[in-house]
Amino acid sequence: MIRLYDFWESGNAYKVRLLLTQLGIPFERVPVDILKGETHTDEFLRKNPNHRVPVVEWPDGRTLAESNAILFYFAQGTKYLPEDPWLRAQVLQWMFFEQYSHEPFIAVMRFWHFSGQLEANRQFVAEKTERGYHALKIMDAHLSPRSYFAGDSYSIADIALYAYTHVAGEGSFDLGRFGAVNAWLNRVRRQDGHILITDSVGTEINFPE
Amino acid sequence: MIRLYDFWESGNAYKVRLLLTQLGIPFERVPVDILKGETHTDEFLRKNPNHRVPVVEWPDGRTLAESNAILFYFAQGTKYLPEDPWLRAQVLQWMFFEQYSHEPFIAVMRFWHFSGQLEANRQFVAEKTERGYHALKIMDAHLSPRSYFAGDSYSIADIALYAYTHVAGEGSFDLGRFGAVNAWLNRVRRQDGHILITDSVGTEINFPE
Repeated sequence: MIRLYDFWESGNAYKVRLLLTQLGIPFERVPVDILKGETHTDEFLRKNPNHRVPVVEWPDGRTLAESNAILFYFAQGTKYLPEDPWLRAQVLQWMFFEQYSHEPFIAVMRFWHFSGQLEANRQFVAEKTERGYHALKIMDAHLSPRSYFAGDSYSIADIALYAYTHVAGEGSFDLGRFGAVNAWLNRVRRQDGHILITDSVGTEINFPE
Repeated sequence: MIRLYDFWESGNAYKVRLLLTQLGIPFERVPVDILKGETHTDEFLRKNPNHRVPVVEWPDGRTLAESNAILFYFAQGTKYLPEDPWLRAQVLQWMFFEQYSHEPFIAVMRFWHFSGQLEANRQFVAEKTERGYHALKIMDAHLSPRSYFAGDSYSIADIALYAYTHVAGEGSFDLGRFGAVNAWLNRVRRQDGHILITDSVGTEINFPE
């Protein structure tokens, strides 16, 4: 069975939990506490030298890091990733947008809140907030005439952007002003097999074993 | 003919110039000066609301942003992107690594140097430098037993990482200590159809028309 090295509060890890659940792929969930430095141990660095969750590990020892690459791997050949080359490029455009222009602001603000690091980073809050709202505005404008990010159906682009957008309020972002984003969040929540970021999924095992 | 909205010094735009040249795909090159704010004009924002180059535009008006999504689009069905689902995920893992854990440090340091913004950002230089070296160390360890980032041949993962790595010295990074990275840089330079970041390619047209 595959293993998902996971951190409960991580939206990046939640993306993988969500897709694996929607695909019906069983997995073992291995909690790694990033707040306790567990991604910096020698054992973890052998799985991902870039010390980040999520990482997926196969029984033969192969590992795959980067949440959006993991989503792509499992979505290939399924309805969550279009075959059409143009639509596929659109999916990736939004996934790269998420990692470069969304996550570093919206996810990081939330992280500072729940990890108690907000005061220590006070000087950066204005810029992070401004850039996070910029990402939300772009999403709202794109979604206004559309139901999903790429093509006419729910894809891994939606999963990638949903993960941190739906909890943006935990980083002090006011989602109330983004009507199209809110309609889309609800559309994502109504997909078959949807789980919450707090839902217990997978068989939990300890790390290190 | 397709148009590439381009900025000469941008490694992200160079990625696209390089792949299109290696594929023999003709294009019009539309220079956009990011230092003069030309990515923030209404005309440009209609092409990419995220105000970044590169953007590719088709004659029917369709546009595609995000350098690595553009690479993926054109590489589909060519030798620059493996068909194998596992190798394809490896390619994407390194491309997402590039955008999240490499470009924001190595490219940004270089940008501050050539745009004269280094002094204004002096307080961030130590962290950017440390995180840039961290990315280079991960690359060097990965490449030590390998010739390319994913599988046994040159792919868009190599193009994505080459773009800013080969000019990291312009951001004060010392590449001398990374032997495997240097051997790989030379391997990339020897690929058929390789061009320099400064090479004139495409038919240049003005923006706005």
